[in-house]
Amino acid sequence: MSFIARAASRVGRHSCQRYSFAALRSAAITDRFKSSLAAQAEVDLEELDTAAKTVDEALPKIDTPTDWSTFNPSKSGTPSPWAVFDAWGANDIKDGLSSEVEEAMLSAKAVAIPMDENDREGLPDESDILAAYNSFLQGKSSVHFGYPYNLMFDFREVMQFLQYSINNLGDPFVPSNYGVHSRQFEVAVIDFFARLWKMQPGAYWGYVTTSGTEGNLHGILLARERFPDGILYTSQETHYSVFKAARYYRMECQSIPTLPMGEINYDILAEAIAENKDKPVIINVNIGTTVKGAVDNLDRILRMLQQLQIPRERYYIHCDGALFALMMPFIDFAPEVSFRKPIDSIAVSGHKMLGSPMPCGIALCRKEHVQNVEQHIDYLNSVDTTIMGSRNGHAALYMWYSLRKKGVEGIKRDVLHCIQTARYLRDKLTEKGLSCRLNDLSSTVCLERPLSNDFIQRWQLACEEDICHVVVMPNVTRSKIDKFVDELIQVTEKHGRIQPVREGSPLMQLSATW
Amino acid sequence: MSFIARAASRVGRHSCQRYSFAALRSAAITDRFKSSLAAQAEVDLEELDTAAKTVDEALPKIDTPTDWSTFNPSKSGTPSPWAVFDAWGANDIKDGLSSEVEEAMLSAKAVAIPMDENDREGLPDESDILAAYNSFLQGKSSVHFGYPYNLMFDFREVMQFLQYSINNLGDPFVPSNYGVHSRQFEVAVIDFFARLWKMQPGAYWGYVTTSGTEGNLHGILLARERFPDGILYTSQETHYSVFKAARYYRMECQSIPTLPMGEINYDILAEAIAENKDKPVIINVNIGTTVKGAVDNLDRILRMLQQLQIPRERYYIHCDGALFALMMPFIDFAPEVSFRKPIDSIAVSGHKMLGSPMPCGIALCRKEHVQNVEQHIDYLNSVDTTIMGSRNGHAALYMWYSLRKKGVEGIKRDVLHCIQTARYLRDKLTEKGLSCRLNDLSSTVCLERPLSNDFIQRWQLACEEDICHVVVMPNVTRSKIDKFVDELIQVTEKHGRIQPVREGSPLMQLSATW
Repeated sequence: MSFIARAASRVGRHSCQRYSFAALRSAAITDRFKSSLAAQAEVDLEELDTAAKTVDEALPKIDTPTDWSTFNPSKSGTPSPWAVFDAWGANDIKDGLSSEVEEAMLSAKAVAIPMDENDREGLPDESDILAAYNSFLQGKSSVHFGYPYNLMFDFREVMQFLQYSINNLGDPFVPSNYGVHSRQFEVAVIDFFARLWKMQPGAYWGYVTTSGTEGNLHGILLARERFPDGILYTSQETHYSVFKAARYYRMECQSIPTLPMGEINYDILAEAIAENKDKPVIINVNIGTTVKGAVDNLDRILRMLQQLQIPRERYYIHCDGALFALMMPFIDFAPEVSFRKPIDSIAVSGHKMLGSPMPCGIALCRKEHVQNVEQHIDYLNSVDTTIMGSRNGHAALYMWYSLRKKGVEGIKRDVLHCIQTARYLRDKLTEKGLSCRLNDLSSTVCLERPLSNDFIQRWQLACEEDICHVVVMPNVTRSKIDKFVDELIQVTEKHGRIQPVREGSPLMQLSATW
Repeated sequence: MSFIARAASRVGRHSCQRYSFAALRSAAITDRFKSSLAAQAEVDLEELDTAAKTVDEALPKIDTPTDWSTFNPSKSGTPSPWAVFDAWGANDIKDGLSSEVEEAMLSAKAVAIPMDENDREGLPDESDILAAYNSFLQGKSSVHFGYPYNLMFDFREVMQFLQYSINNLGDPFVPSNYGVHSRQFEVAVIDFFARLWKMQPGAYWGYVTTSGTEGNLHGILLARERFPDGILYTSQETHYSVFKAARYYRMECQSIPTLPMGEINYDILAEAIAENKDKPVIINVNIGTTVKGAVDNLDRILRMLQQLQIPRERYYIHCDGALFALMMPFIDFAPEVSFRKPIDSIAVSGHKMLGSPMPCGIALCRKEHVQNVEQHIDYLNSVDTTIMGSRNGHAALYMWYSLRKKGVEGIKRDVLHCIQTARYLRDKLTEKGLSCRLNDLSSTVCLERPLSNDFIQRWQLACEEDICHVVVMPNVTRSKIDKFVDELIQVTEKHGRIQPVREGSPLMQLSATW
């Protein structure tokens, strides 16, 4: 089903049913017949159709080497011109379970750390364990579909730095006395994101985090320091790290219901804020929810705050951009999430869209907020502004290398690959009669949960109640999708299909809206 | 000055002056003539002398290859039998500043990430930048003295895994659906520490953290969840991460003054607790303070709680073991810090004593505490028990490899090297007439702050007001110390010596107690 056909279907029965079914308190009539994307970008359906055509034309045909591509198409699954490193074989599925020998080599008994020479007796050699582990990782990486991690990267040139203990302790912008750091690279990465998200020079602060969670913990912390008695509003489909932050920081938090497609229910949000006008407002905006990849409509939330007459000095907006904040700026017709709008902080992961051997991310905010938490630490000769004190300098280096080698064009190609390949998967599943859904601008395909745990484990699918999802990343290729769907059909024939586990379950919403 | 001579000097004038001078509210008469170590280990001075002799005999002569050593003594500075990897040259000081070309290559302008092809024009090639960076890191690593990081490690064999995105998301003991993990290694590392710290099988929980800070944030969080209205007591020389935890978690925190050598002032602590008997007690015990390497006397604190009749169900003890919790178990006569005593959690760093390319650590606690914070996350098919959601699987692998290759004997040798070499430094400084101090069992030598920022920068000394410190780690050798002291004398002759910056400043305490 094409993008245009889907857009057209929104005015049809299902779409109406969707809104009336689960969101009675939601969306004004005029918004009802637009997708949230359309509402956010303030375009009508005609514009959307044009945009869709442009995208379809712009999208390279994946799995076919093109002129701009310098990669080895027989091995690589990503259209990024620099992704030539494919030691584990993105296209080569390593089938079958590990051998018994391998499994034994990775057992608790084999990898135990001895306390003395008696303990050590009979333990396998470390090199043999590591060889088995390599084989294990190869297999697992080759059939990974469920989490939004780009497993395709090439850091051979920066591996050498593992011989150094690189620690950016303290603040990225304030050199500490410890000299073995990668601050210059970290600052370059922050500067890049500041430009990407349209921040004025000198007006921002940020750092390379150890994960998306740390970015959220940091953003919500800044919000609480800005408004010690503020209420945090966030949708119930928000990543657990945001609720965790509220719990850690002892903040009042309101979990707002969602629309069936996963966006926050704007009307309920507005009501909740209206009821608590004596308290400052802290909103976490999901730039891509974890499970459905739904993007909360920032513009609509801002309009709502305006309508409620909440002045700028009474609200703080944090954007959890885990995966999507690094995708949306590279799609020409996507709504803009940037600091040109009155937002306060963004968190994004580095190991997701960009890809990295270890989890990492970026926290970016307006400079004045971090000044609220800054503490000078004599011992560091720097300031304590980050959650962690000691910080992984290698992660900054990986992000720097990746951004510099790929360039904006390279990332754009990766992003388009993901979106187009996700559509391929959605269409294929639909063709086979399976329930599934793909949000606009998203590469996250939600589908009914297969009734085989072996299958779920094999493809490492992330599940929630009666649905699961596939996040199409640069290492997910059409040929892998073909194999995935074939196996899924076999599983379905053998075990049948899951029934909704409860009234209003994710699967019920997914089926109702499709 | 030998260990024995120092012990003897404690009964002399200086020692008495120290206690009467700055800790009127402290130490009972009987404790006054023992070092805190002696008090803690419940040994008298005679036993201490014997212990000192034993250590002196046990200590290998560093910089001289010995039988048990398999390293290349011409290159390596560590007595660990496996530390043969010395790409940057622990004994070869890379002198002089980087060349101008190198500096230009690492400038903000050169490492900037271009937004488009125009931006890219004129930028140096990444490989040239990385070559300059390698030279920069070599230089910085070769003259690092100030932070407690073991820069000597050999991870060539595990470098290959950088091609995988290894993420132990969720809990170490509960497999998630994401298959590219290193959980089996993480669990082996946790099991090792549980045995080291004498925890019963099945009674503990822990994980590999991204830094010592995360371990403290986790331990203090568990404490707060156990006692939501508990008061956190910790000495004012505590690492800033503990105060940060209290601030994040909105806990009442009392910062207790210290004795001149850096331990918590036990009498003031007792008074503070006695005054707040209506609130549960949370104590952070420093197993090595950041600046002076002072170890809070756990046994004395426990006795005090008993005397105050605080029952076990009304207190939580977290031990911040950053560096020392990985040194003390390897010194035969050190007081025992372990779960055989009524403590609740320990945090230790992995990049400190053990050495790692990136910051990491271990958080270990009694299992029942983590059950208070556990949340099942459908999406992960695991539980959320750690601070971070996505977690660096490589760090677990580095710790595992290091522990397994070194073994308890290897770490013991590293520890003894540090303690003996720190004494060498202290004696050398004393001989030159400079003020300095080395706590028992510590490898942290505090000295007067040199009056040259260039010197401080060059040796990357951590400073606090008018003192600085050198932490002797496996990569700090006697020949480097000779060079350091020579340069320090030159600097002192040129710039003079610092005067105490205020009444009761760290330098004043250091001079008074020496």
